[in-house]
Amino acid sequence: MPTLQSEHIVSSYEDELTQLARSISEMGGEVEAAVLNATTALLKLDHNLARQTVAADKRIDEMQRKIDETAVSMIARRQPMATDLRSIITSIHVANDLERVGDMAKQVSRRALQIEGLSLAPKFYNGLKHMTDLILAQLKAALDAYSTRNGAAAIAVCNRDDEIDALYTSIFRELLTYMMEDPRNITQCTHLLFCAKNLERVGDHATNIAEAAFYLDTGRYLSGDVEDLHRTQVRE
Amino acid sequence: MPTLQSEHIVSSYEDELTQLARSISEMGGEVEAAVLNATTALLKLDHNLARQTVAADKRIDEMQRKIDETAVSMIARRQPMATDLRSIITSIHVANDLERVGDMAKQVSRRALQIEGLSLAPKFYNGLKHMTDLILAQLKAALDAYSTRNGAAAIAVCNRDDEIDALYTSIFRELLTYMMEDPRNITQCTHLLFCAKNLERVGDHATNIAEAAFYLDTGRYLSGDVEDLHRTQVRE
Repeated sequence: MPTLQSEHIVSSYEDELTQLARSISEMGGEVEAAVLNATTALLKLDHNLARQTVAADKRIDEMQRKIDETAVSMIARRQPMATDLRSIITSIHVANDLERVGDMAKQVSRRALQIEGLSLAPKFYNGLKHMTDLILAQLKAALDAYSTRNGAAAIAVCNRDDEIDALYTSIFRELLTYMMEDPRNITQCTHLLFCAKNLERVGDHATNIAEAAFYLDTGRYLSGDVEDLHRTQVRE
Repeated sequence: MPTLQSEHIVSSYEDELTQLARSISEMGGEVEAAVLNATTALLKLDHNLARQTVAADKRIDEMQRKIDETAVSMIARRQPMATDLRSIITSIHVANDLERVGDMAKQVSRRALQIEGLSLAPKFYNGLKHMTDLILAQLKAALDAYSTRNGAAAIAVCNRDDEIDALYTSIFRELLTYMMEDPRNITQCTHLLFCAKNLERVGDHATNIAEAAFYLDTGRYLSGDVEDLHRTQVRE
């Protein structure tokens, strides 16, 4: 009975840590739904769904603020030892990444409201859908690695980010071609360029969350080398 | 003698708080320089400067990591009371915003390396320069409001963000026009679209820092209404 439990006034420290982890999971679920809804709204030009997704972002922001406050209040009251303190501070970072993913979903939804028709070749939208599926899988895997503190799973998430980057590059080039072929495509393609970029950024945030998971599991930072590896060239 | 002081082994709690504030200021200075260098590299197509700016981002990332570790270590050792705890946690958030501004500067620098010639009308580049000047002024004002905890100055920063958004919208439209006029402009304009977007995001991060300043000064959140005000429409 998760609802009843979350309404309890938590009293033990262990309960509070569990509750904090649960809040991150819930926020993660909300954010995953937002990304799915935003891309569905974009690919089906479903303006109602786009508007709902924009509106839902307020709830995500609120969740972040609450996690932030809970974390600070726990630190103040419980004065946790090093390991727990690290884990609580990490939850602030992860909530921050999730809030930004929510923001990306909001941006995509707003673009969906600006696009008037899907006039490009169907294979383009299929490619975008494929990229979205991969990104959602990455986000889910990163959140799972975080909640189970599984460093190996976290590394796997970071390694798969290359695949998303490659897809993004291909989508970017395709959009340039459509623009060059016919100036009437330029407005739509520009919106889609930013949407693709937003989705690629979701992948980066998933990587950040995976890095947090790796850190909690191993006490070591993963970011330096992986970041170098991923960001050596401009990615389009 | 700031250098000597920062090399001291800090011993008192007050010293540590001062040192943390100084680290944020130093990081802020580094990030301001990065934004200035990135946009100079872009507007003069100075590839050397662009490469230096990309390389300098590592230092910025390192500064963030250090601020993060200092903050966590202070919380663990000093177990600060509510107000100090808030201020220390806020420094984690501000360092995070600064790191992302650094990332924006890196992205702009990388795009500068991709652009082969500045073939648009000079008035376009003047507009971009004007937007950059405003954004740098915003960033500086936000960092000043933060270091002096001046809530009124923070509100002024948030209110001025509309001006940046308006400039961004105008630059966005101009770029679309150039693309439609001549397909040979499309590649350059696409890079410039993303640069303009990155710069506009720097403005958003300046707003976040100003919000943190307001919060530290007043204990109240500014973000809700301001954010609504700023983000009701899609900004391009």
